[in-house]
Amino acid sequence: MRHTGSRVRAAFQGELGAFSHEAAMRLLGASVKVVPCQRFEHVFSALADGKVEAAVVPIENTLHGSVHENYDHLLEFRHTIVAETNVRIVHNLIAAPGVGFRRIKRVYSHPVALNQCLKFLAGNPQMERVPFYDTAGSVKMLMEQGLEDAAAIASAVSAEIYGARILRRSIEDDRQNFTRFFLLRRESDSPLRLRQEGKKGWKTSLVFTTRNQPGSLFKALSVFALRDLSLTKIESRPLRGRPWEYLFYVDLLGNPAEDRVRKALGHLEELADMLRVLGSYRV
Amino acid sequence: MRHTGSRVRAAFQGELGAFSHEAAMRLLGASVKVVPCQRFEHVFSALADGKVEAAVVPIENTLHGSVHENYDHLLEFRHTIVAETNVRIVHNLIAAPGVGFRRIKRVYSHPVALNQCLKFLAGNPQMERVPFYDTAGSVKMLMEQGLEDAAAIASAVSAEIYGARILRRSIEDDRQNFTRFFLLRRESDSPLRLRQEGKKGWKTSLVFTTRNQPGSLFKALSVFALRDLSLTKIESRPLRGRPWEYLFYVDLLGNPAEDRVRKALGHLEELADMLRVLGSYRV
Repeated sequence: MRHTGSRVRAAFQGELGAFSHEAAMRLLGASVKVVPCQRFEHVFSALADGKVEAAVVPIENTLHGSVHENYDHLLEFRHTIVAETNVRIVHNLIAAPGVGFRRIKRVYSHPVALNQCLKFLAGNPQMERVPFYDTAGSVKMLMEQGLEDAAAIASAVSAEIYGARILRRSIEDDRQNFTRFFLLRRESDSPLRLRQEGKKGWKTSLVFTTRNQPGSLFKALSVFALRDLSLTKIESRPLRGRPWEYLFYVDLLGNPAEDRVRKALGHLEELADMLRVLGSYRV
Repeated sequence: MRHTGSRVRAAFQGELGAFSHEAAMRLLGASVKVVPCQRFEHVFSALADGKVEAAVVPIENTLHGSVHENYDHLLEFRHTIVAETNVRIVHNLIAAPGVGFRRIKRVYSHPVALNQCLKFLAGNPQMERVPFYDTAGSVKMLMEQGLEDAAAIASAVSAEIYGARILRRSIEDDRQNFTRFFLLRRESDSPLRLRQEGKKGWKTSLVFTTRNQPGSLFKALSVFALRDLSLTKIESRPLRGRPWEYLFYVDLLGNPAEDRVRKALGHLEELADMLRVLGSYRV
């Protein structure tokens, strides 16, 4: 049976209303059943154990770079990437209903979110910054405790979920702040019916290691360049137990159903010690 | 005047006894005058402002990968890399003198260090893990507070500095845990006389951006491959304000005094939008 997005349970890291929750709704529809997890590892294992049918994880951010922990989990758990989405990170100042802007003395949020709203905070020095474990979790906390002199910095979705009010919208310093999320399924799962409007191309993500020899990365990349295949990303990660050697994660435009992609991957297999395709998905 | 290592003041992040302190002693001799800083940014700005003559920063770890924040600071501050060193990360269980192993109920350390001693901690379930802001800082704290049922996980140097005792040596899960550190100077500074025993080769670190076109990274790497130059590392970082475009950091064996390295860099200038040599140093 093919699942439609709305019947799928999807695990993500963080509290309800986190940016991963927003990504899950984009990927699987607003009625997706979400399963919040405390740690990224739990998101991957929930999918492995069949507690959910899908997982949504952030993989890179345009300001901070890759989420390396999730690259490591992609290798460890053998899940398949079936879709990606980019979410613009919009931070809002959020408080309990009835709490006015002038009463705010403390602002709770994840340290990364606080750091992304430095101009707003510098312009409001009466607000003390209080680091908290989660953006949406700080909205949840101030609603539960009925705080009347505090606000949170979090997503618009989190204000809606916990019944809080947005006092100031889009207070982030940099509007070019996007996070890219992957939708993961188990390798053996049947395809999901996904919303793919406006998506015409394909992307394929893979990971490989090369022999530790001069020019080996250059040779590996030649299998794509010789076939005019575009790489959209390359990322190196250390190989555990082999100091100063690296794994390479590559995203390329195309999918293995195309002749030149299949041939490039066959060629790469000749050169690489290890090669794994992590998934192909519409872009 | 040429400085000898021992007269140089060197800034590093963390408390006295941190692994960066150990790296500073390796690079500049045990009598180096160190200036601990709270944040990496302060380490770079202390050097820029002339408060110190050198800075020591971690740049990558064999388990966790690159310290991306410091790659970003390398680009922002125009300091020069003048040396590197690799420090093996050895974690020790440390307590105040007279406190025996059996009395330990709590173990303080930085969360990363606690995570690197999971086998030891699993074998001693009576010890509660308490996350702390710094490894060496947790030794300092338990000595200051005279804790008699607590220990810290930190470097051997930190036990020495704060007058604490090592109860168990080398309790880390993985012995292949090394951190690579850079020694930085200002661009205009005269050369330091450094201990270079056993170092016969050179490494050069550089950063560049390429046009966002198919095959552009491949072309950039060709300038090294065509001249049989070995790359020991390649790392991508997002370009601020240009979502999904990247900077590339490359380490190569050689230095620009060599003809083929100079020619490779000249060739790369033709292909790259931006190119900067971050430093050449002995390896």
